[in-house]
Amino acid sequence: MELTIYLAGEIHSNWRKQLTSMAKELPWTLHFVGPMENHERSDHIGEEILGEQPNSIFKDDAASAMNNLRTEVLLQKSDLVIALFGEQYKQWNTAMDASAALTLHKPLILIRPEKLHHALKELSRKASVTVETPEQALQAISYIFEEN
Amino acid sequence: MELTIYLAGEIHSNWRKQLTSMAKELPWTLHFVGPMENHERSDHIGEEILGEQPNSIFKDDAASAMNNLRTEVLLQKSDLVIALFGEQYKQWNTAMDASAALTLHKPLILIRPEKLHHALKELSRKASVTVETPEQALQAISYIFEEN
Amino acid sequence: MELTIYLAGEIHSNWRKQLTSMAKELPWTLHFVGPMENHERSDHIGEEILGEQPNSIFKDDAASAMNNLRTEVLLQKSDLVIALFGEQYKQWNTAMDASAALTLHKPLILIRPEKLHHALKELSRKASVTVETPEQALQAISYIFEEN
Amino acid sequence: MELTIYLAGEIHSNWRKQLTSMAKELPWTLHFVGPMENHERSDHIGEEILGEQPNSIFKDDAASAMNNLRTEVLLQKSDLVIALFGEQYKQWNTAMDASAALTLHKPLILIRPEKLHHALKELSRKASVTVETPEQALQAISYIFEEN
Amino acid sequence: MELTIYLAGEIHSNWRKQLTSMAKELPWTLHFVGPMENHERSDHIGEEILGEQPNSIFKDDAASAMNNLRTEVLLQKSDLVIALFGEQYKQWNTAMDASAALTLHKPLILIRPEKLHHALKELSRKASVTVETPEQALQAISYIFEEN
Amino acid sequence: MELTIYLAGEIHSNWRKQLTSMAKELPWTLHFVGPMENHERSDHIGEEILGEQPNSIFKDDAASAMNNLRTEVLLQKSDLVIALFGEQYKQWNTAMDASAALTLHKPLILIRPEKLHHALKELSRKASVTVETPEQALQAISYIFEEN
Amino acid sequence: MELTIYLAGEIHSNWRKQLTSMAKELPWTLHFVGPMENHERSDHIGEEILGEQPNSIFKDDAASAMNNLRTEVLLQKSDLVIALFGEQYKQWNTAMDASAALTLHKPLILIRPEKLHHALKELSRKASVTVETPEQALQAISYIFEEN
Amino acid sequence: MELTIYLAGEIHSNWRKQLTSMAKELPWTLHFVGPMENHERSDHIGEEILGEQPNSIFKDDAASAMNNLRTEVLLQKSDLVIALFGEQYKQWNTAMDASAALTLHKPLILIRPEKLHHALKELSRKASVTVETPEQALQAISYIFEEN
Repeated sequence: MELTIYLAGEIHSNWRKQLTSMAKELPWTLHFVGPMENHERSDHIGEEILGEQPNSIFKDDAASAMNNLRTEVLLQKSDLVIALFGEQYKQWNTAMDASAALTLHKPLILIRPEKLHHALKELSRKASVTVETPEQALQAISYIFEEN
Repeated sequence: MELTIYLAGEIHSNWRKQLTSMAKELPWTLHFVGPMENHERSDHIGEEILGEQPNSIFKDDAASAMNNLRTEVLLQKSDLVIALFGEQYKQWNTAMDASAALTLHKPLILIRPEKLHHALKELSRKASVTVETPEQALQAISYIFEEN
Repeated sequence: MELTIYLAGEIHSNWRKQLTSMAKELPWTLHFVGPMENHERSDHIGEEILGEQPNSIFKDDAASAMNNLRTEVLLQKSDLVIALFGEQYKQWNTAMDASAALTLHKPLILIRPEKLHHALKELSRKASVTVETPEQALQAISYIFEEN
Repeated sequence: MELTIYLAGEIHSNWRKQLTSMAKELPWTLHFVGPMENHERSDHIGEEILGEQPNSIFKDDAASAMNNLRTEVLLQKSDLVIALFGEQYKQWNTAMDASAALTLHKPLILIRPEKLHHALKELSRKASVTVETPEQALQAISYIFEEN
Repeated sequence: MELTIYLAGEIHSNWRKQLTSMAKELPWTLHFVGPMENHERSDHIGEEILGEQPNSIFKDDAASAMNNLRTEVLLQKSDLVIALFGEQYKQWNTAMDASAALTLHKPLILIRPEKLHHALKELSRKASVTVETPEQALQAISYIFEEN
Repeated sequence: MELTIYLAGEIHSNWRKQLTSMAKELPWTLHFVGPMENHERSDHIGEEILGEQPNSIFKDDAASAMNNLRTEVLLQKSDLVIALFGEQYKQWNTAMDASAALTLHKPLILIRPEKLHHALKELSRKASVTVETPEQALQAISYIFEEN
Repeated sequence: MELTIYLAGEIHSNWRKQLTSMAKELPWTLHFVGPMENHERSDHIGEEILGEQPNSIFKDDAASAMNNLRTEVLLQKSDLVIALFGEQYKQWNTAMDASAALTLHKPLILIRPEKLHHALKELSRKASVTVETPEQALQAISYIFEEN
Repeated sequence: MELTIYLAGEIHSNWRKQLTSMAKELPWTLHFVGPMENHERSDHIGEEILGEQPNSIFKDDAASAMNNLRTEVLLQKSDLVIALFGEQYKQWNTAMDASAALTLHKPLILIRPEKLHHALKELSRKASVTVETPEQALQAISYIFEEN
């Protein structure tokens, strides 16, 4: 059995690299997908493909179209979703992707520092599992495969 | 035709009162539902019903169970969702509810100040309509009923 | 039993008025809903609510958001859809609404002049019923209620 | 990861050949499917299989049954849909296929010349992404796979 | 609570009249809907609305479009389906309607003479309840409402 | 706003009477539905309608068909489900009904004595809310309506 | 691209053998699945696994459980369904399987002799394609793959 | 064709080992998945990953989150579900998983000793097949593949 896992959440830290390199130590076949991690490119991708836009709102709109396309395709391909929330960013798109996954019956692992629990309490209650670190998320995934 | 509208978003300002009192001027039959607006009660409702919890995380968990129940029931009853994001709060549950509605094919009107556009660009691109004020949201709803 | 019927299709002719006034002669309770029939307003509704847009593409984009919101809400409320195609206009949004209805298991009556059959053959094959006039569409609806 | 992409839209120009030959330059595994591009055969396929029909309406009906079967099977197999609209044809079946895909939560890339924006504004607003050329559509698809 | 019940099955006998007149004795609010029971009209309804067809196949095709429209609309309105099979007719459309209802999570009561059990065994196994007479079907429906 | 609530769970104690009589004190419009509470009749309803069965297994099978029909119809009509588990009975059908509701996106309130928590932990984690008494379940429902 | 095709319909003639041996001549990868074709075994499979049943009704019930399990699993695995109706048998389970497939958005090819058109008119109108012979069904499937 | 089968049910006996070792004798490709069979670990997995919890209720809650995650992922990957009920345990999570599978149109084979029939009669009536032993369950699965 192989699992494809969508890694939603902030693209400003290197948590995906940490998580995927730890995952390589595991004996399971895990495929990780996720948003564009080059933040600058993620903001400019609309103008990169469609050309200059009239103002920053429309530049954002064009970029979000491309980012949403990427997320929609990869989310459909995924068996579960990990969503990480950090302290610094609003990450409303992360909450949006996590909730879309849940509504489509795709399991969700939420990673957040304990101090964010209050702000995330409703999403945490809907998640399959809430943990504090990528290591714990991988332990939860590993548990899916383990036999004893 | 009557419409039931779920008002997702911050409960710290009085935007729902503004919106619903403006709506009373309209000739359409609109029913508004939404989360508990008494913030303190919303935070304590878990302990109010279930008794004291071991710590603040579990207090949050108990409260979010009650808040999610309310939202789930009222969202199912609604024909469309208005979600308002203000500058001050994280409102991840608002993004969660908005995305659940979209995934269930329920139309979404997003209200946000222009300066939040960048952080909300992906959700804005998925919303049926994005506006900046409750008045504009009501204009959009009124347009659903108008004949010319 | 009452039926709510969405009337998709061109807004340049007065076929909706014809159809709904004929429907008043029938003994059944039929509620008709549909798009904004004031063409000019339908094109300007985005700027009416959101203010002036940078160019005609973005003006169109803003207007279509409002028009889609209206359609999404009214389609969800409807029990069946009548879609009329005339010879003059492209009416791609009519095909879009008709197909969304079919995919959601909502029955579709297609009205088109015989000479459009070739261009509409795939949609006609998917429709529950294809007719040539609003009178025939009403006869088909009447047949749903008739007892002998 | 591999993607299967349905290419909806006009069969009178060679845009599919252009797009698929450009796609061969990309390092991703993309499978392209689509309607019968031999226009004459697409019109005659009903009579080819079922024999002569009583008149051109029934000939169309028989052909569209075969064309719809092809589209239904291939659309179910696809991860996303590209729909191209040109200036010359009505292409109502393209709008129908695009809308069916969207309703089934399959992402849609719309290709259309800028001058068609007004007629396509409602479909464009529902599409994940709207572009003007097959090159841009491929850039959007490439962005799904790119890592930085 | 009110229930709307679709009565699928043969239109050659008067079982619907029997069942609905017995139902009037019950203290529950039951609405019964079903196919056109005037067999001749059911066969001619396509030509009645669309005019003469080239041959009997196409006459059948036109009639079935109208009959399917009626069934689709009424089935969507129904809370449960009763399907009666008699010994004389093939009634493949009855099996089709019953199966569509089941797949959409609508409960099904199957009425059939015991001697048809073998031919109906797979449908009987999928039905919520299988009985032999309309009286028994009404007893099962009555049981939904009864309090002790 | 009115809510219809399905009361799943043991039929040997009088918890439904308690709950519904307390509910009459509330200012909200609540409709309660549920299984047949006359245990003997619930066990015999198959033979009551279908006549004597060959043995107790087939008697059970006939009874469960009628009980499932009742539950399926009433569950579809309900906006939320309350499931009560007591210490004495296996109540596997209660777990079945609760899980069907959850999978269909219907909110679930679980009532169980604290000492059953271990055996019910997986269902409790999926429920919207878990409480210990019918009073608490009603408080949770009341909270859906309350304005401050 | 590979297709898995469920062959519903009578098990008394050798039409599946004919069709699958013709299919071997085609350059496409087609996997055919279907019901148990050994009629006697299909009737006895319930008692073969569960032991002797009290009477022929219960024997039928046990057999149909096994036959339905087979069909449910294989239908879920299939990309499209071919349903053949012959003149001799009632084949209500064939109509049931065909309708379940259609309701789940799986395309259906109906094969029937012309003289059965009247009895099958409603199912024929819902099928993607109706033909008279297995050869024609294969031509329709081949057309899904052909490039010109 | 390959099948993935989720083995729900008690983890205190070795019925999975029996069943999977018998399955190795069969010529079909069957993949078996299921819950953590190490009972102690299943109870402690929450604290193993998340650290010590305030009391046994919260320990249970944490464990069930991990167990539910495992089940949700594996159930989505499965083509059918076998659920075994033994005499000793409450196994409400087994009933929950079985019902979730049925509601998602995944076939269910129920294994239970005859003496549990009464308590399981409603679930048995919904299952595709009910048997008494793992051997019989495998016979039913084998029948899906057999050709005569």
